[in-house]
Amino acid sequence: WLKEQLSHLHSSELGDVIEALPPEQRIAVVAMMKADFDFAALTEVDEAIRLEIVDQLPNNQIALAVQELDSDDAVYILEDLEPEDQEEILGQLPFTERIRLRRSLDYPEETAGRRMATEFVAVPPFWTVGQTIDYMREDKELPETFSQIFVIDPGFRLLGAVDLDRILRTQRAEKIETVMHETRHAIPVEMDQEEAAQLFERYDLLSAAVVDENDRLVGVLTIDDVVDVIQEEAEEDIKALGGVGDEELSDTTVEIARSRFIWLLMNLGTAVLASLVIGLFDATIEQMVALAVLMPIVASMGGNAATQTMTVAVRALATRDIDIYNAARIIRRETLVGLLNGVMFAALIGLVAGFWFDNPSLGGVIAAAMVINMLAAALAGILIPLVLDKIGADPAIASGVFVTTVTDIVGFFAFLGLAAWWFDLL
Amino acid sequence: WLKEQLSHLHSSELGDVIEALPPEQRIAVVAMMKADFDFAALTEVDEAIRLEIVDQLPNNQIALAVQELDSDDAVYILEDLEPEDQEEILGQLPFTERIRLRRSLDYPEETAGRRMATEFVAVPPFWTVGQTIDYMREDKELPETFSQIFVIDPGFRLLGAVDLDRILRTQRAEKIETVMHETRHAIPVEMDQEEAAQLFERYDLLSAAVVDENDRLVGVLTIDDVVDVIQEEAEEDIKALGGVGDEELSDTTVEIARSRFIWLLMNLGTAVLASLVIGLFDATIEQMVALAVLMPIVASMGGNAATQTMTVAVRALATRDIDIYNAARIIRRETLVGLLNGVMFAALIGLVAGFWFDNPSLGGVIAAAMVINMLAAALAGILIPLVLDKIGADPAIASGVFVTTVTDIVGFFAFLGLAAWWFDLL
Ligand SMILES: [Mg+2]
Ligand SMILES: [Mg+2]
Ligand SMILES: [Mg+2]
Ligand SMILES: [Mg+2]
Ligand SMILES: [Mg+2]
Ligand SMILES: [Mg+2]
Ligand SMILES: [Mg+2]
Ligand SMILES: [Mg+2]
Ligand SMILES: [Mg+2]
Ligand SMILES: [Mg+2]
Ligand SMILES: [Mg+2]
Ligand SMILES: [Mg+2]
Ligand SMILES: [Mg+2]
Repeated sequence: WLKEQLSHLHSSELGDVIEALPPEQRIAVVAMMKADFDFAALTEVDEAIRLEIVDQLPNNQIALAVQELDSDDAVYILEDLEPEDQEEILGQLPFTERIRLRRSLDYPEETAGRRMATEFVAVPPFWTVGQTIDYMREDKELPETFSQIFVIDPGFRLLGAVDLDRILRTQRAEKIETVMHETRHAIPVEMDQEEAAQLFERYDLLSAAVVDENDRLVGVLTIDDVVDVIQEEAEEDIKALGGVGDEELSDTTVEIARSRFIWLLMNLGTAVLASLVIGLFDATIEQMVALAVLMPIVASMGGNAATQTMTVAVRALATRDIDIYNAARIIRRETLVGLLNGVMFAALIGLVAGFWFDNPSLGGVIAAAMVINMLAAALAGILIPLVLDKIGADPAIASGVFVTTVTDIVGFFAFLGLAAWWFDLL
Repeated sequence: WLKEQLSHLHSSELGDVIEALPPEQRIAVVAMMKADFDFAALTEVDEAIRLEIVDQLPNNQIALAVQELDSDDAVYILEDLEPEDQEEILGQLPFTERIRLRRSLDYPEETAGRRMATEFVAVPPFWTVGQTIDYMREDKELPETFSQIFVIDPGFRLLGAVDLDRILRTQRAEKIETVMHETRHAIPVEMDQEEAAQLFERYDLLSAAVVDENDRLVGVLTIDDVVDVIQEEAEEDIKALGGVGDEELSDTTVEIARSRFIWLLMNLGTAVLASLVIGLFDATIEQMVALAVLMPIVASMGGNAATQTMTVAVRALATRDIDIYNAARIIRRETLVGLLNGVMFAALIGLVAGFWFDNPSLGGVIAAAMVINMLAAALAGILIPLVLDKIGADPAIASGVFVTTVTDIVGFFAFLGLAAWWFDLL
């Protein structure tokens, strides 16, 4: 009965059920469903769970199941396997299937070639609309769903594409070449998936042809998979900005603790660095303990202001909203924003500190330090992501550490240094 | 010549050109292009720019232009206008057009009803595939693009849908009702756009019917607009986590400085709170200045660990990966991760501090404080987003402030309090 129920689920629902099960029952459910188990469900679960299940299944069962899948889903499952297992499974597939999957697997990770499906409908330009419709009515080998028909020459070179709605509203006698549009948005196999996703967004595409170096049509990228790419990339950036690696919700405690450890270790390094700066002024603090009470404020405000700027910069870089044409304008603006808010908060904290410790000079010192650190925050927040992006590093991953290191060090140094100098306490 | 060039651009490219222009030239370009200006480009620019341009155009020109747009794009432009302007423009539209747009505008912001297009193709179930194709060949009023045909009864109630590829591979004599699938994914008009986007992702939809309270078909939501929703929502969360409101890249310096000011002001409040905690122990610090040197380490490590946990929690809540079934497990796991890393970093910093100040007891005190703060960080990082979500607040916006306030206060209090007690320095 359970088997009956499960086999009626959509693959993404089945995927959710599997994720919700305790680990030991997952494989039991797959085993129970036997040939009824839709392997597409495995593309909808966390990577760790997918590997765990696939590892426990015999390779010949995987080989059978993989043939039922769209090639992109098959690749998605095969790509994470050990090379030996991959080879053994590929070896059991029919020739054409094997060639196709191997070709997709040969493209680098996160490229259009890796994400594309190799099932598509392509017709010659001299066919009529009627011929095309008749062909689709007869051919049983069509992909499960499609929203576009590609037009190719005898050498498989891409000439154009026709949307299905266009075919449906055209008279049967019309030639395909008169209704096709030249595909300005053909995607090279080597294009990064993130860039391809941007083309989809920009031109509102439902699917796009993927072409090799010789402009030959080799596959199709579809919006449902692009949506997954968009989510993945957004998730990557959110996590990187929060100092988390590519952990997944299903990971074990130890895996998660270990992956977060690295990031925290880097942070410990920068925190110790900041402590060394404070240590330079221990004699100063000893003579004026109010400095110890106030110093975290300067650092914390700088850290937050820098995080604001950095977040905006990282996001704008990810969506390609920052480019060489407006980078200068944005750097200038961020600097001004830092100065403006720096002055406001300097006045505010200067008054608070002055009254709190009944010491107007101390208010002046913290105000000056605040302006300096907010300016440093703005510059670090915008320049560090831009430079990282320029040298080809991922600004989302690396910016956080650098940026708060700058604001901690500048904050403590400016505040304690100014105080030591002004009150002559070194 | 420029006009010629610009009128060949895709609306999103034209939008980019407008964004890149200095403010005073934007309206000049729109004016120059006159009727050739594709108002769809305005749906691709930042809100501030859209308002600026639309405000400067006469309402009757907007009324003319809006009729050329898909209804969802028209709504997108009209929704941000002043009510008087909106009314004046709607008043100049043909009757049916006016009714449709007004209905969409009556649905709350960020709902399916507000985002849907009211142009769609619908046929009765007893038509044949051939009849349907003929209808599409003749009717000139069809939407510009579509990927699905809806099936309705005489009362406009939704019965099902047929994908275009299914129509194309079916014989002309077949009845629509035999090829249609019942739409399990009809979207209620009042559904939040984020929830609708999740249905699209989950079931790989290209478009979906939007139905009113009586199950009548009122519009269609398409994947290209859903992709924009997904990007918007991801952007909202990234910015909220970074302490930034809904500023846009095109905003002026003053607007940005003002919108960030609020967030920084809240942070100043929590920083002063943390300073008050330090202030409780000023006598202690005076006698042992090493405490001032080390205390930012405890607070900073707690803040980072809490941010890690919070980031994962906020993201999992946004993608609905945390639910009542696994919340308990995840809370338990985060606590364990906090404890584990807490112990590791306690050992590490304990050794460093002990040797640095040649004081093993001080090492012991900072180690204990580290364990306490890392545990507090884990609990705050997971519980605060969960509680905020539970009470209907957006965890992405509010978690940041609360979480780091907890780790600052607990961090300073635990470290300085333990030191005061252990070394008897109060
Ligand atoms: Mg993968
Ligand atoms: Mg778009
Ligand atoms: Mg696919
Ligand atoms: Mg999929
Ligand atoms: Mg990437
Ligand atoms: Mg990325
Ligand atoms: Mg844009
Ligand atoms: Mg809007
Ligand atoms: Mg999907
Ligand atoms: Mg639309
Ligand atoms: Mg659009
Ligand atoms: Mg929302
Ligand atoms: Mg949201």
